[in-house]
Amino acid sequence: MYELGIVKRHITRADRSAAERLATLGVATVHEAMGRVGLMKPYMRPIYPGAQIAGTAVTVLLQPGDNWMLHVAAEQIRDGDIVVAACTADNEDGFFGDLLATSFRARGARGLVIDAGVRDVKVLTEMGFPVWSKAVSAKGTVKSTLGSVNIPLVCAGALVQPGDVIVADDDGVVVVPAALAAKTADAAAAREANEGDKRAKLAAGVLGLDMYKMREPLEKAGLKYID
Amino acid sequence: MYELGIVKRHITRADRSAAERLATLGVATVHEAMGRVGLMKPYMRPIYPGAQIAGTAVTVLLQPGDNWMLHVAAEQIRDGDIVVAACTADNEDGFFGDLLATSFRARGARGLVIDAGVRDVKVLTEMGFPVWSKAVSAKGTVKSTLGSVNIPLVCAGALVQPGDVIVADDDGVVVVPAALAAKTADAAAAREANEGDKRAKLAAGVLGLDMYKMREPLEKAGLKYID
Amino acid sequence: MYELGIVKRHITRADRSAAERLATLGVATVHEAMGRVGLMKPYMRPIYPGAQIAGTAVTVLLQPGDNWMLHVAAEQIRDGDIVVAACTADNEDGFFGDLLATSFRARGARGLVIDAGVRDVKVLTEMGFPVWSKAVSAKGTVKSTLGSVNIPLVCAGALVQPGDVIVADDDGVVVVPAALAAKTADAAAAREANEGDKRAKLAAGVLGLDMYKMREPLEKAGLKYID
Amino acid sequence: MYELGIVKRHITRADRSAAERLATLGVATVHEAMGRVGLMKPYMRPIYPGAQIAGTAVTVLLQPGDNWMLHVAAEQIRDGDIVVAACTADNEDGFFGDLLATSFRARGARGLVIDAGVRDVKVLTEMGFPVWSKAVSAKGTVKSTLGSVNIPLVCAGALVQPGDVIVADDDGVVVVPAALAAKTADAAAAREANEGDKRAKLAAGVLGLDMYKMREPLEKAGLKYID
Amino acid sequence: MYELGIVKRHITRADRSAAERLATLGVATVHEAMGRVGLMKPYMRPIYPGAQIAGTAVTVLLQPGDNWMLHVAAEQIRDGDIVVAACTADNEDGFFGDLLATSFRARGARGLVIDAGVRDVKVLTEMGFPVWSKAVSAKGTVKSTLGSVNIPLVCAGALVQPGDVIVADDDGVVVVPAALAAKTADAAAAREANEGDKRAKLAAGVLGLDMYKMREPLEKAGLKYID
Amino acid sequence: MYELGIVKRHITRADRSAAERLATLGVATVHEAMGRVGLMKPYMRPIYPGAQIAGTAVTVLLQPGDNWMLHVAAEQIRDGDIVVAACTADNEDGFFGDLLATSFRARGARGLVIDAGVRDVKVLTEMGFPVWSKAVSAKGTVKSTLGSVNIPLVCAGALVQPGDVIVADDDGVVVVPAALAAKTADAAAAREANEGDKRAKLAAGVLGLDMYKMREPLEKAGLKYID
Repeated sequence: MYELGIVKRHITRADRSAAERLATLGVATVHEAMGRVGLMKPYMRPIYPGAQIAGTAVTVLLQPGDNWMLHVAAEQIRDGDIVVAACTADNEDGFFGDLLATSFRARGARGLVIDAGVRDVKVLTEMGFPVWSKAVSAKGTVKSTLGSVNIPLVCAGALVQPGDVIVADDDGVVVVPAALAAKTADAAAAREANEGDKRAKLAAGVLGLDMYKMREPLEKAGLKYID
Repeated sequence: MYELGIVKRHITRADRSAAERLATLGVATVHEAMGRVGLMKPYMRPIYPGAQIAGTAVTVLLQPGDNWMLHVAAEQIRDGDIVVAACTADNEDGFFGDLLATSFRARGARGLVIDAGVRDVKVLTEMGFPVWSKAVSAKGTVKSTLGSVNIPLVCAGALVQPGDVIVADDDGVVVVPAALAAKTADAAAAREANEGDKRAKLAAGVLGLDMYKMREPLEKAGLKYID
Repeated sequence: MYELGIVKRHITRADRSAAERLATLGVATVHEAMGRVGLMKPYMRPIYPGAQIAGTAVTVLLQPGDNWMLHVAAEQIRDGDIVVAACTADNEDGFFGDLLATSFRARGARGLVIDAGVRDVKVLTEMGFPVWSKAVSAKGTVKSTLGSVNIPLVCAGALVQPGDVIVADDDGVVVVPAALAAKTADAAAAREANEGDKRAKLAAGVLGLDMYKMREPLEKAGLKYID
Repeated sequence: MYELGIVKRHITRADRSAAERLATLGVATVHEAMGRVGLMKPYMRPIYPGAQIAGTAVTVLLQPGDNWMLHVAAEQIRDGDIVVAACTADNEDGFFGDLLATSFRARGARGLVIDAGVRDVKVLTEMGFPVWSKAVSAKGTVKSTLGSVNIPLVCAGALVQPGDVIVADDDGVVVVPAALAAKTADAAAAREANEGDKRAKLAAGVLGLDMYKMREPLEKAGLKYID
Repeated sequence: MYELGIVKRHITRADRSAAERLATLGVATVHEAMGRVGLMKPYMRPIYPGAQIAGTAVTVLLQPGDNWMLHVAAEQIRDGDIVVAACTADNEDGFFGDLLATSFRARGARGLVIDAGVRDVKVLTEMGFPVWSKAVSAKGTVKSTLGSVNIPLVCAGALVQPGDVIVADDDGVVVVPAALAAKTADAAAAREANEGDKRAKLAAGVLGLDMYKMREPLEKAGLKYID
Repeated sequence: MYELGIVKRHITRADRSAAERLATLGVATVHEAMGRVGLMKPYMRPIYPGAQIAGTAVTVLLQPGDNWMLHVAAEQIRDGDIVVAACTADNEDGFFGDLLATSFRARGARGLVIDAGVRDVKVLTEMGFPVWSKAVSAKGTVKSTLGSVNIPLVCAGALVQPGDVIVADDDGVVVVPAALAAKTADAAAAREANEGDKRAKLAAGVLGLDMYKMREPLEKAGLKYID
């Protein structure tokens, strides 16, 4: 359950170097390395293609049509953080624009993940400030009802604890618990190392059917080839 | 209530110079300057990023699967207009393509806003003819049932009067009533002028909490900081 | 009705040269030439803009959250094919990524059309391997339940027979039955030839109202011009 | 464009007897009699089946997550009114429940039409207080930002002027401009009178093809019967 | 691919007695008996709860906003048929109401399955004429563009051949190919016979884990019980 | 992050008597008493109207198209539990039907909350076994991939811990953390007690404007009454 009206100032952030490694591996590989859990819903899309980042979560719970807590959150940002914002009700207003982006960047933020709308996307794109959101909307918001900062929250279907590692790229957004960051980076790197070899074989025309030894289980499952 | 089978030939267009100024200010700023009203729903998206235009509305009411009235509307276009098309029922067919765009441009249109589908988006992109739409669909339409041209209509949730200023960019589409165009341009420009200073402060690390003097109202609202 | 657990090895592919011609004509023109049938639903979108392809369909029926049959399908791909994948239930998991794309390309595939999700879209974009999908999702899939390969299936609302020509571009995806490929290419080419002249007239300011002789039928339908 | 922070106390309500007649005719017939315009989008659904009402509109513009203006609107309700509420942004919170319904009913309201969410639907059903809404949600709302009462607004895609007749039943909600209420009631009643005869013929097995003399136009349009 | 402007008069209907048996078994059981294929998408909902029918398909392809072909289809209905209607583009208009229902019933139809909207649902409910649809909408339709009757078509994602058995109840709609009707009825009945015994055991507290012997495969898959 | 392949046998259930009291208070009142947090998304709808229950959560994480873990969960049900099921990806298959309901009821379950589809809804309604779901679908599921039972999970946007109290009625579903159940029941009961008096006043025509003393804050916010 969410506690409202709270700002937690001291959070335990995941290991920085693990976050750096996860950034280079990308969402799909990290998600696989985690056993296919922790992914946000696929409606979360980047406002421009090509960004690939990782960082530690500063979480923000917003009220619909009200971005007050994003201003409160700015003060809690440390270098290498990603702000993760959810709303107590589905809402596509534009909670965030270029002024907040300027402030977030000055505080060290690497990007924003928000289960709501954003605006000024042309300027954000020119600034190279990456945002993953549910919508783009020019509609501004008021500043009158409290939410919270740095509480555990659900963003786009995924549970996020303050300090968790967030990895985001064109495939979406995945959450890596702080305690598992290093281990996940190792597993993802191992997976990745393994892929180069597979890719070369497949490019040479070897079939996955053979490379993954699927023919027998397929036959067992009853697959029939007909002409 | 819509009157069907009507083409209004003489409409009062908003002041041209106000429209020009609004184009440079963009949707989010104009929407704020209007007091946060007049915005179309955020499902209206540009077919390519980067276009930012303003112009006076020629309105078109379409029937589902029928683009006859777009041809009728072409004749009513004057230089600097934006065609705004709505449909009597939700429909995502491709009502508009490169031939109509060629005709609209020859008549002086700056773009199209349509609460339905468009097609030939690759060619429209190459032509640089901007369109904001609900969908992209190759499905063509018939020409057999009357709608109307230059009547007041509801497009993507916003009321549009013929002659109103339409401002459209990557953040969406906003409608400025003709009578308010100059005043809104003034207010938006004042807002914009004010933003440069704010941006500089935020970039230097000043917090919005301090710049906007939010600490006291937040405390009054009961915000608690914990460690 | 779908038969599950079947791979059909020999299918009759549409004439290669017809497919080549259809590729150059594009989806909207081909769809018109077919009498406005055969189009997939407009939620099928390219993962990057600008690709325009045609090829013969290798069809794949998938189970939700399970991409086993894509591996089976790889073996059935011949040069010039496009893989068309549907799922027995709505599902947006990422069934396809860069490894499968490497394999499909090595087998001669020109692209993928999938009524589900894909991942690794950044790499797929760099590879220039075009995909039309319903969603982008990093979520991986298991390999445990049988579907079928090269059976007739419904993809995004359109019926696809193995061997049919698939045409895909920024406007969407259209299916041309193998037996109609040559005839449709002729009709589409005739349509296209005709468009240059129309475009020139419209660009010169001639109205569609006059060029298409619409004034009389509009008057007959009761259209009234008012001032 | 919406003006915010306004309550209009004196509005011109449509003729009461016309509203009574429209109530008995139902939405589909009234909508036909209006020439198929004025209908709200089909996502507006009754919270329980079977209610069929008409009344004069008291309009309310709400802010997302904020139901303050519904309390303001209560004072403006006169006997025979229907409250029509829209929101400045898509929002499915539960803006209305049994306490407000008790108040609205005490003031003479016949029902509520709201392009947002409602709650306490079990009690509302027991009370027999009909509501047409976009969603059902238990989520409550704050009271802190101004909207307006009795301004023209767009509700679920339809333009509503204060005082217009609202007709609502299981088929949806239609808006009849006050000035057209009597005329529309006449036209709808004539339509209805005509239907009894048609129904009897169709029940006896006469085909619409013959009753509406469609065979010739179908043949002309090119319809082919094959065996 | 759809052929437009065609009415096929003679179709081969599935065996009547098989349809009768399938009606008593219900959609979920029939769908299982078919190997989990042939189901329409779950957005197809009954306009009132409790109806459970089966019948032979008369298919109708409609154009958006145009119900002309439903009138044409009426003549092709034989006793025991269910009309199955699809549209060439997504459209939620009210294509069907109580007059058409009166006509369809007089011709022997048992119900309607339509991938679009219907109206007069209160009267249809009183008549006990069951309809499964995508939407309810009072919006009427024109009669001006040809579709087809009794061609194979895709309805809500399922392929329907004229004469196939359609089974519909509160769980949705499933299509049984005519040639498989008897065999499917046998398989479904066998399944059903088997269920009474299972139900009794489960009601007595026997666990599915034991009844279906799942403990071993679960352990093999790696399931761990912790305290 | 979810751990897969786990069944937790011993969970701490919330106090039974608190759950009983919460059941009588209903979702909207409980949600208010919690400070407006803990609500599932409004797409979660009851399969039949009128049920109002509360119980302790047994949680189940499912894989798309696979209901194996519901069978595993049955064994963990104790009298007074409500099963809460989520899926690792959006999926509307029918994971649950009358056989599982028979088993769940025999184990003491009061109902099911599932962020996916269910089937056999007619029988479930006859049984009076209440279900809140995202969809109704006849599509069956396989039993081949592990999820987990009694882990913390996100269901329809809300975080659920095993043992939490779930309250569900026609307004939706709310989650009350086990530790707060008694306190929340007290607060909700106090709220409820207070409502009778308010209801009587409102029914007598007293305005909320006066009863809640809103006139001054509205004036302060700038509300203007015009004629």
